[in-house]
Amino acid sequence: MTVTATIGIDVGGTKLAGTALAADGTVLQRVRVATPRDDAAALTDAVAGLVRELGSGVPVGVGAAGIIDRDGTIRYAPNLGVANLPFGRTLSDRLGVPVIVRNDASVALYGEWRVGAGRGVDDLLMLTVGTGVGGGILLGGNLVEGVNGLGGELGHVIVDEGGRLCPCGNAGCLEAYAAGKAIEARAQSRINGGSVTSVLTRHQGRIDGRAITDAAAAGDGFAIEVLEEAGVWLGVGIAGLINAFDPARVLVGGGAGVNAGDILLEPARRTARARIMGAAHREMPDIVLGELGDDAGAIGAGLLALARTA
Amino acid sequence: MTVTATIGIDVGGTKLAGTALAADGTVLQRVRVATPRDDAAALTDAVAGLVRELGSGVPVGVGAAGIIDRDGTIRYAPNLGVANLPFGRTLSDRLGVPVIVRNDASVALYGEWRVGAGRGVDDLLMLTVGTGVGGGILLGGNLVEGVNGLGGELGHVIVDEGGRLCPCGNAGCLEAYAAGKAIEARAQSRINGGSVTSVLTRHQGRIDGRAITDAAAAGDGFAIEVLEEAGVWLGVGIAGLINAFDPARVLVGGGAGVNAGDILLEPARRTARARIMGAAHREMPDIVLGELGDDAGAIGAGLLALARTA
Repeated sequence: MTVTATIGIDVGGTKLAGTALAADGTVLQRVRVATPRDDAAALTDAVAGLVRELGSGVPVGVGAAGIIDRDGTIRYAPNLGVANLPFGRTLSDRLGVPVIVRNDASVALYGEWRVGAGRGVDDLLMLTVGTGVGGGILLGGNLVEGVNGLGGELGHVIVDEGGRLCPCGNAGCLEAYAAGKAIEARAQSRINGGSVTSVLTRHQGRIDGRAITDAAAAGDGFAIEVLEEAGVWLGVGIAGLINAFDPARVLVGGGAGVNAGDILLEPARRTARARIMGAAHREMPDIVLGELGDDAGAIGAGLLALARTA
Repeated sequence: MTVTATIGIDVGGTKLAGTALAADGTVLQRVRVATPRDDAAALTDAVAGLVRELGSGVPVGVGAAGIIDRDGTIRYAPNLGVANLPFGRTLSDRLGVPVIVRNDASVALYGEWRVGAGRGVDDLLMLTVGTGVGGGILLGGNLVEGVNGLGGELGHVIVDEGGRLCPCGNAGCLEAYAAGKAIEARAQSRINGGSVTSVLTRHQGRIDGRAITDAAAAGDGFAIEVLEEAGVWLGVGIAGLINAFDPARVLVGGGAGVNAGDILLEPARRTARARIMGAAHREMPDIVLGELGDDAGAIGAGLLALARTA
């Protein structure tokens, strides 16, 4: 029997995904529970409980949606409803093992780099398209965390000044155009305007991201159009980021990203290719889907915890 | 007499600025000539001539506006009118010394980091506001050049999708809103619309960046407004970049940046502070003017060449 070497927990806006991992990243066990929102104590209890179910005496890595400093304090996490929460220290005291806490998209990138779609190159960008749009940057094999650890929020580069309101309180962020929530809002607004689509008859009439990606996969023109529009925005953001970083490869993950796949990625590729600076005089980096799907964050968090405590 | 240890050349869209430097970055001699445009051979001759005037037998660093790969080939430089020019190799063969060629804003950042406004911290962003908007990124004391060396083009993050046309051929880039040329165009358009300003009576009626910054410094309300608008756009770009990188400090340089000073920087600071993610829960990095002014690129290029060949 393979021994659990590390535990990774992905703290998302809707669910907590925990995995027990072997040292090579193989997933040995998965546990998922709903995320307690707007309640720091309940969130801490839930994560500690998940870790105890998965094992003991091994390092724990946590990826969470939000800006998180080097000490593992969640400074601001609108999707979790907590702020200034010393998550890493509290969990480490409670569990008696080293606990690192990082941004969820950064650890997803780390996981894809170690055992997924990012293998073989050391300069990567990742955008995770889920409820929001997260981001991670790897340069020369090092995660870019910034001086306080708050870096990597690529969903909050501003692509349309004065544009749509973003859940972060700002306006015109990439997230306000390309996130799952933005896709749903766009679909809802068009349906209100009279558009006809099979999206409506899926999932008990809820216009959620899954209903839209499912309808698009089944050929629904409306759903495809809505996703393509998000893909174009994603490409706009990616073009600017390629100009800034010149990465070897760009990864797209997250729930909506993985579900939509090429319906989202093709317009993103086309747009980014047309919009990078000096396009005629340079190679275009590949823009590819992550390979680890929903597990990316938990696998990356666990492997990063193992690497940092080794 | 202090010995010349290295030579730095800043290849801008209008002038070539050469400096002979001591090993500690002290400028021993400056020579400036006009930039030959749209003529690769004339440009190479001019730079080689400038180096010969300044010294021999020491490494040469060249900073040029454009995207430049690790081998010193200028892939694309719309402001110089050249493309796919093996500049480093040609100059090195001609001069018989090691020559490095890098993006001008990246070397300006390097210069400011070593002997200017970036001293003391290792995570820096720089935006150079001149004819265009250039950018540089330093993380952990290393220049971010990207996998091909083409990174750092922070003037070409897209801040207003579908917006103004940028000289790079794209639309909505930060450069199209905050560069010297954009400031001039905005002033011209308002003057055409009937605005009254002392800008018109300066510099023989030419609406150039210098006339605008001079008028603003003298209290001309129109000129101040035009610069403040550019400053707000600069702040929008900087906010997104702080979200992405979490730098310790942000530097602003370039001719127009240095001339406009706080008239440009105050609205940029105010906007960036209001627009970074989780503003209430984090510190705002300082946004400061470079200290090396027009010399930043040449000093940085020379010091980088010295460091790389040491």
